[in-house]
Amino acid sequence: MSKALDTSVAYFAAWSGGDLDAAMAHVSPDVVVVAPAGRLHGPDQLRAFMEPFARMLLSSALLSAFGDDDTALLYYDTSTALVASAPAAERHTVVDGLITELQMVFDRLPFEQARAAAG
Amino acid sequence: MSKALDTSVAYFAAWSGGDLDAAMAHVSPDVVVVAPAGRLHGPDQLRAFMEPFARMLLSSALLSAFGDDDTALLYYDTSTALVASAPAAERHTVVDGLITELQMVFDRLPFEQARAAAG
Repeated sequence: MSKALDTSVAYFAAWSGGDLDAAMAHVSPDVVVVAPAGRLHGPDQLRAFMEPFARMLLSSALLSAFGDDDTALLYYDTSTALVASAPAAERHTVVDGLITELQMVFDRLPFEQARAAAG
Repeated sequence: MSKALDTSVAYFAAWSGGDLDAAMAHVSPDVVVVAPAGRLHGPDQLRAFMEPFARMLLSSALLSAFGDDDTALLYYDTSTALVASAPAAERHTVVDGLITELQMVFDRLPFEQARAAAG
């Protein structure tokens, strides 16, 4: 497995398993996150974004993961009570075993629709 | 480069360059597409979905691409007049040089918002 992928897969396994402490151990103090709603800076902002989602998670499946020395791509599916199937992808830059840049893409629309329907 | 990635990168280069004929030459007649709005079946439905977007495209950048013998992941950014930066990811299953399954993820929300704002 590539060096970056070791880190990325460990990060994914940790947060999707609900262990945000373990997840953040793979994240640089200077991480920059490019998420659909905008940029986040630092592990605290990343954790504040991911932890509520991790708590909602009914299941997740890592469909594919690839990487080289300093970059990794993950493609996964998630299931929550809000959205039965919400796929997502992440692109990580990894330096010295820590994720320094984390780009993620998912479709916010079904989450917005579910929240609107719930009032 | 992996066998799947050859096909996937050629497909991406073709559609993002506006050549949908060339893109569809890399797609199986039996392709199943899992897109944010639902499933599409066959190259005609895929083309009807991608061609209007390809025509809107101001620029695109393939940020990372990885694969193995039968799977490829692409992570890219796109720019259109509607949405200045709309990243997306695709996961392809490739058999005998043709994409047989194409999963894609992007955030529909900014496109919906832009269309609503435009009336």
